[in-house]
Amino acid sequence: MSLIQVINPNTSLAMTETIGAAARAVAAPGTEILAVCPTHGVESIEGHFDEAIAAIGVLEQVKRGKAQGVSGHIIACFGDPGLLAARELASGPVIGIAEAAMHTATLMATRFSIVTTLPRTLVIARHLLQQYGFTHHCAALHAIDLPVLALEDGSGVAQEKVRQRCMQAKREDGSGAIVLGCGGMATLAQDLTKELGMPVIDGVSAAVKMVESLVALGFGTSKHGDLDYPLEKPLSGAFQHLN
Amino acid sequence: MSLIQVINPNTSLAMTETIGAAARAVAAPGTEILAVCPTHGVESIEGHFDEAIAAIGVLEQVKRGKAQGVSGHIIACFGDPGLLAARELASGPVIGIAEAAMHTATLMATRFSIVTTLPRTLVIARHLLQQYGFTHHCAALHAIDLPVLALEDGSGVAQEKVRQRCMQAKREDGSGAIVLGCGGMATLAQDLTKELGMPVIDGVSAAVKMVESLVALGFGTSKHGDLDYPLEKPLSGAFQHLN
Amino acid sequence: MSLIQVINPNTSLAMTETIGAAARAVAAPGTEILAVCPTHGVESIEGHFDEAIAAIGVLEQVKRGKAQGVSGHIIACFGDPGLLAARELASGPVIGIAEAAMHTATLMATRFSIVTTLPRTLVIARHLLQQYGFTHHCAALHAIDLPVLALEDGSGVAQEKVRQRCMQAKREDGSGAIVLGCGGMATLAQDLTKELGMPVIDGVSAAVKMVESLVALGFGTSKHGDLDYPLEKPLSGAFQHLN
Amino acid sequence: MSLIQVINPNTSLAMTETIGAAARAVAAPGTEILAVCPTHGVESIEGHFDEAIAAIGVLEQVKRGKAQGVSGHIIACFGDPGLLAARELASGPVIGIAEAAMHTATLMATRFSIVTTLPRTLVIARHLLQQYGFTHHCAALHAIDLPVLALEDGSGVAQEKVRQRCMQAKREDGSGAIVLGCGGMATLAQDLTKELGMPVIDGVSAAVKMVESLVALGFGTSKHGDLDYPLEKPLSGAFQHLN
Amino acid sequence: MSLIQVINPNTSLAMTETIGAAARAVAAPGTEILAVCPTHGVESIEGHFDEAIAAIGVLEQVKRGKAQGVSGHIIACFGDPGLLAARELASGPVIGIAEAAMHTATLMATRFSIVTTLPRTLVIARHLLQQYGFTHHCAALHAIDLPVLALEDGSGVAQEKVRQRCMQAKREDGSGAIVLGCGGMATLAQDLTKELGMPVIDGVSAAVKMVESLVALGFGTSKHGDLDYPLEKPLSGAFQHLN
Amino acid sequence: MSLIQVINPNTSLAMTETIGAAARAVAAPGTEILAVCPTHGVESIEGHFDEAIAAIGVLEQVKRGKAQGVSGHIIACFGDPGLLAARELASGPVIGIAEAAMHTATLMATRFSIVTTLPRTLVIARHLLQQYGFTHHCAALHAIDLPVLALEDGSGVAQEKVRQRCMQAKREDGSGAIVLGCGGMATLAQDLTKELGMPVIDGVSAAVKMVESLVALGFGTSKHGDLDYPLEKPLSGAFQHLN
Repeated sequence: MSLIQVINPNTSLAMTETIGAAARAVAAPGTEILAVCPTHGVESIEGHFDEAIAAIGVLEQVKRGKAQGVSGHIIACFGDPGLLAARELASGPVIGIAEAAMHTATLMATRFSIVTTLPRTLVIARHLLQQYGFTHHCAALHAIDLPVLALEDGSGVAQEKVRQRCMQAKREDGSGAIVLGCGGMATLAQDLTKELGMPVIDGVSAAVKMVESLVALGFGTSKHGDLDYPLEKPLSGAFQHLN
Repeated sequence: MSLIQVINPNTSLAMTETIGAAARAVAAPGTEILAVCPTHGVESIEGHFDEAIAAIGVLEQVKRGKAQGVSGHIIACFGDPGLLAARELASGPVIGIAEAAMHTATLMATRFSIVTTLPRTLVIARHLLQQYGFTHHCAALHAIDLPVLALEDGSGVAQEKVRQRCMQAKREDGSGAIVLGCGGMATLAQDLTKELGMPVIDGVSAAVKMVESLVALGFGTSKHGDLDYPLEKPLSGAFQHLN
Repeated sequence: MSLIQVINPNTSLAMTETIGAAARAVAAPGTEILAVCPTHGVESIEGHFDEAIAAIGVLEQVKRGKAQGVSGHIIACFGDPGLLAARELASGPVIGIAEAAMHTATLMATRFSIVTTLPRTLVIARHLLQQYGFTHHCAALHAIDLPVLALEDGSGVAQEKVRQRCMQAKREDGSGAIVLGCGGMATLAQDLTKELGMPVIDGVSAAVKMVESLVALGFGTSKHGDLDYPLEKPLSGAFQHLN
Repeated sequence: MSLIQVINPNTSLAMTETIGAAARAVAAPGTEILAVCPTHGVESIEGHFDEAIAAIGVLEQVKRGKAQGVSGHIIACFGDPGLLAARELASGPVIGIAEAAMHTATLMATRFSIVTTLPRTLVIARHLLQQYGFTHHCAALHAIDLPVLALEDGSGVAQEKVRQRCMQAKREDGSGAIVLGCGGMATLAQDLTKELGMPVIDGVSAAVKMVESLVALGFGTSKHGDLDYPLEKPLSGAFQHLN
Repeated sequence: MSLIQVINPNTSLAMTETIGAAARAVAAPGTEILAVCPTHGVESIEGHFDEAIAAIGVLEQVKRGKAQGVSGHIIACFGDPGLLAARELASGPVIGIAEAAMHTATLMATRFSIVTTLPRTLVIARHLLQQYGFTHHCAALHAIDLPVLALEDGSGVAQEKVRQRCMQAKREDGSGAIVLGCGGMATLAQDLTKELGMPVIDGVSAAVKMVESLVALGFGTSKHGDLDYPLEKPLSGAFQHLN
Repeated sequence: MSLIQVINPNTSLAMTETIGAAARAVAAPGTEILAVCPTHGVESIEGHFDEAIAAIGVLEQVKRGKAQGVSGHIIACFGDPGLLAARELASGPVIGIAEAAMHTATLMATRFSIVTTLPRTLVIARHLLQQYGFTHHCAALHAIDLPVLALEDGSGVAQEKVRQRCMQAKREDGSGAIVLGCGGMATLAQDLTKELGMPVIDGVSAAVKMVESLVALGFGTSKHGDLDYPLEKPLSGAFQHLN
């Protein structure tokens, strides 16, 4: 029995549910999904400030997950906030959903498109593309110009905008796959894949399979070199619980 | 029940066994491994000429595998010969072992080293790093300066050289993981991982988990765009069987 | 008397003629052109699968050319299929027409445009730009969206589409030269150069001058390092003739 | 009268003094330096985990500095933790000391070397080089293999190691300037510049001049686009004070 | 009292005035601006040929400035003509205005746009972006398609075109700052910054602050390595005065 | 009868002879070589300052060559000084010898080494590699640490140092070709090629074949776009003769 911790870095319980559902939908028989979110933080993540705060919540959850004996951790926000910090803390694998979706896309298509929420988050995606090595594999980035929580308002407006943008990407970008750029879009991928007739990738489900794979291979995060456990030093005040 | 075809692109039956064993060792309960190699071709692959010939064998096997109803295909030679051509031919996923090992390494470490066979194959690894986007994630490339088939001569000399080079890489490269650069090294990864205390990655096992993952996610190779099936055209003479 | 072998990697005799004519039109007085194509293979090359098959035909012809004492070899398909493999096999120079056209363009203009046939071949051009170092020298890639053989149907439709796209590239791309992205466009370059008042480059003729130049300088393919002759190993079955 | 806030992202008061002194030593007559550090956090920053925690302290201080009417902010840790998040929060300029030192180096030399503390921090420097565009301007990275706080132990051992490494860099790297890779090295730059006869750059003093310059030019952080103020959303629990 | 030499590399006295005024407007109390231009050369710089000639004038002025005891030098043409040559000649800092504007932009925004004069100068900006490391920080390049001297014809037409292009850049590019790509646009920056509500950067004023900063930090051009003084050798004929 | 102007950008008559001889040794029967050097300038080129002065001499000679009806121009100094400026001025092709040697090397080997004179010139080679796109094709750069004119002192010391460095490069770099980084080394290439058993490339002879090739193909420098003739403007004083 393997336990995978899926961390929604924002505090939206609705989105944590969405993400948990997407994770469970693809989990292997022997895998249990533990969908969590920070107690404190921001309701949605739409910039670097939000990410910095969310990163603390991610670290708290990774620490908690470790104590609970989870096999691996997923950071379920498209900016992968706190990814390398979480890798230092963890012994098992830690996967970000942007990372998972981008890697997965390159295994099926020579280039991919990204469809995300607000234009101000595009810079985050661009920096990740550069850091992961996929700048030249991304044909185009699109923003629907709606905030993250619009995906949880029940109206379906945001979902329809995502669909429209995906169809536009298919027509115009010359790419072979589409990456959905928000954890809140996780449940759309399967239907869009069918409707568009091309892979539309949700990072949450992709990350679940990556963690399962690494665990099956006997791999965690490398503790040789720069992702070794944080050097022990007293964490003061508000951060004592991270000691 | 899912069937994964592991294609050794050279004609060495011994190496096909080695590779098949490595694949089976990590296959999920529901996965059956079909380890095959071309009937005709080269005994080992140590350059672009060898790769060009092996690519035809890979395509033949992909075609055969499709007819047998396999879920996905693995190209088990570190140069990933014929990868994009095989993706055109296939409907399911196709994964190369260099691709699999490199991707996997970046999920556990900020940089990795490569240990391969002959120096003349380093250029192939360099080109793949560039194509996949991982040039800056590779800290160093090492060659043991023995041919591929030395790994199958039973003497253990090549294996010991691989081990020595891995230890050197650990001491000198400042990387967090090591990628084994030959299908014939597949069975060494687990022991070296333990001995060195850092991830030593074999692409065969990594590729098995990637194919399983893509299949579980409902993904094959994208048929929208430049990896669509080859345009139908008569294949003449020696290539008729690929029609 | 110098003999240059111009290999059309597809089996179209008409296109072999077109290419041979373009080569002869620029050959130096002392150069004889030997235009050949594989006996077996594909009629046109429009993807990676086609390229993998064509590469074998290229290698067969290089081997034959060597036996005939040719001074150098040209691979006359814009994807340069089998280029590095052919360089291993050859002692003289081997030049691909994409390589030739791209290099030549950078000697006359700070950036160039490419006009090719089907959109699905654009990825091949992009990979070559990256491998040769010219990604930043290419201002734009255009596809006329007609198959290669449309250039041989006698209607002139494809030729007119090429001309239209070249004029569009001149107006919009901000580039100083245009590279024709198919061996079958070879005979169009001279007229388009005149009509557009800017260099329109055919790789076949450019490659002829490159081979002549290398031969005159006393250079063949370097046999020191990774382009040395293929390691001797038995080629079995359908590949025995490549021994 | 202009007030510049120099934020030491760790909680070491000794280092805050060192940094404050280095800032004051170069401040223009009309500039007052406000050297601060977070109340809670880590004593030294030697990895991504430490950085994630320090980023919160940086944001708290930026918020406080804004309330105090400072003209600009400096993040005085070589990893520039929280830089883009702080830029969102601030209206004035925010400069990281790695950023300041690297930019400054390229104005005086074609390539520079970096000398920092622990090897595990090198990856952070490498990522910043990539993000800022200076990967090809950095000739070499060196680590003295001592923790940050060794610079504050009064023994002078760490300082001597820095000096030795700088001399080695001068002899071997072929670079024209050296960047000191830790806020705690700030006071060494001037003497080393004299002793070595080449620019040895401390980011703290460089950042002071950058903030002064931007303020004098009438510039703050751009509020058009992706560095606009964080979208207003309730910050819960431990983060309420950042509202 | 510090003297900064602002070199307009063309021979237009009107533009030298414009540039001098922009420099004086931001100079610190203790800084005196010496705005000069070559006696001989070209009236405006709109290509590589013009730049090659202007570079000689720049070197003459740097030599003269050194003799006059200036603290640093500014090359006030957006192509930074003769920058590295001037750095060899100078002991103090030498800053180009393209360099100054581009560096400054990256301190305030994640990406910037450039608005310049003639389309034929865009290649110069592109090469500088590449050399300085900012290719990926530039969102778009715009040309108003008017020659440099149109900025000095008194009609205001060119100025209005610059304004229009800046507004277009704001709407379309997704960048956070605009760089003005000509010394003759120096006086427009402040008003455009206000009107557009985003930083519009003139390189002349940015360069003044950079030279002041380097001087205050005690830095000149590095004389260790490849920017050391030119090797002494007789300069013949028309270049004797540069001895 | 075709006339190619080979411009030695320095004023050394001995080196002009060396270069002219190297050019004549490979010129086609119908080609006449006109080896020239500037009347005024520097005796050798070992930095950016020297290059700036030499560029004027290059332009003077290009203008003179045009008047004499030459078919094309070669800039025979490894920094390619004034290359793009000369291309604006010329109607025929203009080739730099660094450009020629680097392009030629990539046609014969997957990576090359460079052997040049003084370490301070390495930065120039690095910038050209970047501009031409060959950064990743260069395995290593070597300097013999002797000035350019040591190649003309008759002692053979510099020549022997070049030979030693080439042998070292062969042993250590893993490259397949060596590029000689100075016009004064032109006559060494042929013997070194024989002795080392790998291509050792002199840019002068390579450039002759490139100019011949472009002329034979009917190409000059593109006059569409940014290499169009310089805009007409009065050149004052010392530059009047360039009008």
